[in-house]
Amino acid sequence: MNNFTFRNATKIIFGKDTENLVGNEVKQYADKILLCYGGGSIKKSGLYDRVVKSLTENGIGFVELSGVRPNPRLSLVREGIKLCCDNGIKFILAVGGGSAADTAKAIAVGVPYDGDVWDFNEGKAVVKEALPIGVVLTIPATGTEASDSAVITNEDGWYKKGLHSEFIRPQFSILNPVLTYTLPHYQTASGAADIMAHIMERYFTNVDHVDLTDRLCEAALKTIINNLPVVLEQPENYDARAEIMWTGTIAHNDLLSTGRIGDWASHKIEHELSAIYDIAHGAGLSIVFPAWMKYVYKHNINKFVQFAVRVWDVDLSFESSEVIALEGINRMIEFFRKAGLPVTLEEANISRDRFEEMADKCTASDTKTIGGLVKLDKKDIINIYELAK
Amino acid sequence: MNNFTFRNATKIIFGKDTENLVGNEVKQYADKILLCYGGGSIKKSGLYDRVVKSLTENGIGFVELSGVRPNPRLSLVREGIKLCCDNGIKFILAVGGGSAADTAKAIAVGVPYDGDVWDFNEGKAVVKEALPIGVVLTIPATGTEASDSAVITNEDGWYKKGLHSEFIRPQFSILNPVLTYTLPHYQTASGAADIMAHIMERYFTNVDHVDLTDRLCEAALKTIINNLPVVLEQPENYDARAEIMWTGTIAHNDLLSTGRIGDWASHKIEHELSAIYDIAHGAGLSIVFPAWMKYVYKHNINKFVQFAVRVWDVDLSFESSEVIALEGINRMIEFFRKAGLPVTLEEANISRDRFEEMADKCTASDTKTIGGLVKLDKKDIINIYELAK
Repeated sequence: MNNFTFRNATKIIFGKDTENLVGNEVKQYADKILLCYGGGSIKKSGLYDRVVKSLTENGIGFVELSGVRPNPRLSLVREGIKLCCDNGIKFILAVGGGSAADTAKAIAVGVPYDGDVWDFNEGKAVVKEALPIGVVLTIPATGTEASDSAVITNEDGWYKKGLHSEFIRPQFSILNPVLTYTLPHYQTASGAADIMAHIMERYFTNVDHVDLTDRLCEAALKTIINNLPVVLEQPENYDARAEIMWTGTIAHNDLLSTGRIGDWASHKIEHELSAIYDIAHGAGLSIVFPAWMKYVYKHNINKFVQFAVRVWDVDLSFESSEVIALEGINRMIEFFRKAGLPVTLEEANISRDRFEEMADKCTASDTKTIGGLVKLDKKDIINIYELAK
Repeated sequence: MNNFTFRNATKIIFGKDTENLVGNEVKQYADKILLCYGGGSIKKSGLYDRVVKSLTENGIGFVELSGVRPNPRLSLVREGIKLCCDNGIKFILAVGGGSAADTAKAIAVGVPYDGDVWDFNEGKAVVKEALPIGVVLTIPATGTEASDSAVITNEDGWYKKGLHSEFIRPQFSILNPVLTYTLPHYQTASGAADIMAHIMERYFTNVDHVDLTDRLCEAALKTIINNLPVVLEQPENYDARAEIMWTGTIAHNDLLSTGRIGDWASHKIEHELSAIYDIAHGAGLSIVFPAWMKYVYKHNINKFVQFAVRVWDVDLSFESSEVIALEGINRMIEFFRKAGLPVTLEEANISRDRFEEMADKCTASDTKTIGGLVKLDKKDIINIYELAK
């Protein structure tokens, strides 16, 4: 186990009707806020009205920024920063999924910064302060509700990049599983794939002796594996929705990273896909992760055997590690497929003509490589896109 | 799953040599502190010198309170409160095990309070503020390093009572597994039993559909089960010591309670034992927990079957839940016994002559009962002590 520092101070308020508590939480921070959300869904569901009622009852005024869309855009972030500056806003409340929250986070770092907010995503500046934010979550997926990261897409070149800072962890996040009842089948499944990917990015490590966190990762994966089929059949099953929602937070609140170094290549390889083709991040991951696994499993076959046996209940036979490892990967592919997710690029109507461009963008850092388990260069990434065809 | 609120802001600094970072952490809070510890062990090991060096290098002065002993005493807490008040102390650093930290926590709530600190343990007053505290942990056991509780023994009548408040969660806790190398066999084993008990108190619940937290509990239990025998054989095995130490924190930082109602009867039944007989809390728990389980398992046999199968690898046969449940309990008893822990009162030289007195104290609340899984009254508790003979 490696040395580590762990602190996650986000207050999680979880359960039925908890969105009605939002005004009471917000008032500890400000009496005038930016309310950041997507579009019609929160108005149609009545969530918008309940949030506004709670804010109003607590004497909180707000300026609105709507129009957040999946793979949230830099242009809207810049618009939000201007709104906050023009109106003296000191707190941002995101209502929606990961895109609303990530937009709020990017605005939060942009407001007190003199330069352009994209500097943070490009690593040209380090976050030193941010407005506090809160989240009312409607989609369990990105884990942004308790994470230190936000992913934004720059339409100028279609770059999708993350920014990381302790300053952007939400002060509080409100999670009511009932709000996820109306999520379409495909979005529920993509969200679950994203959650599983967050766990697997941490799970596949070369750090030895990480017994507790291995087991916690396996516990979280099994929870998704057991509960996703339930919610796909019964969208209003509270308990199964609750399991997925809470697992989504645990998957990405950094507990599962303690003492280990994750991989994160699949996320970067996927970001290039969803930046260009605008597919759901989770659906991109259900395509990329299997291909990545097939490409790298021989580098740490014991970990893939453990994954197969403990997570996918593959029978342990000492005759062939390779057979066991591959069976684990196949069961995961089958699981994604049964959930209605694409597992090949072809199924997502993505052809091979931009593999090289995506691999270039993906390895545009100083080291020209990505990946914690196995270092991958441009050629490796093209090979992985080819495997995913 | 029940509604819940979860927030744990304690910063965990984990790994080799991390005690040398203590001064840097403390200086964010105060430049003159109370240093609270037990006795010779931290001086003999050199830990005291390293802590003092780090404090001094960061310009932090300190007043000392030594003499903390296991099952920490109210009289020392009162002495610490006086020291803090007399010296204008604004921060308390505990160096040691749970007793040093719990003493620090009780002092921390006592300093800004006008009345007697025992009021909080008796429920006569509610904590509204506390001095901030930090911990350098040397014994993985009580989980106090990230918990909201402290347990103090009042020598006037030998009452052992907990106090709970968000205000007493440490600001930071420093956990270096190397510091646990010198723990004697018995203390290592008792600590592990305490950790397991914290998990099991949460695990045994009547709340349904707590899939994720069930699995997280099982992950944590299996980590102790696999690593305790290793450290008992190889006291200087860093990785196994690290697994136990990090599990000790996770067991009691409230993550494993989210969405569920724990039992906690065994803890209360044990507190009466260690208050009077001054045995190690963990050793008391290795006696009480098996007896409690045998007494209550029929009330929720499915949970005990799950415990047996998932935690103790008992083969699942659908013929007899009772046989499986009892086999799980027996394997736990065998595990404690192999670790050198007592599993009966007789093995701890405790006779039956004070069962009634202890059962009386244990049920001295308004409801006259304890326990979340099964409500137990005085007679039940005497029966459990009898079963533990």
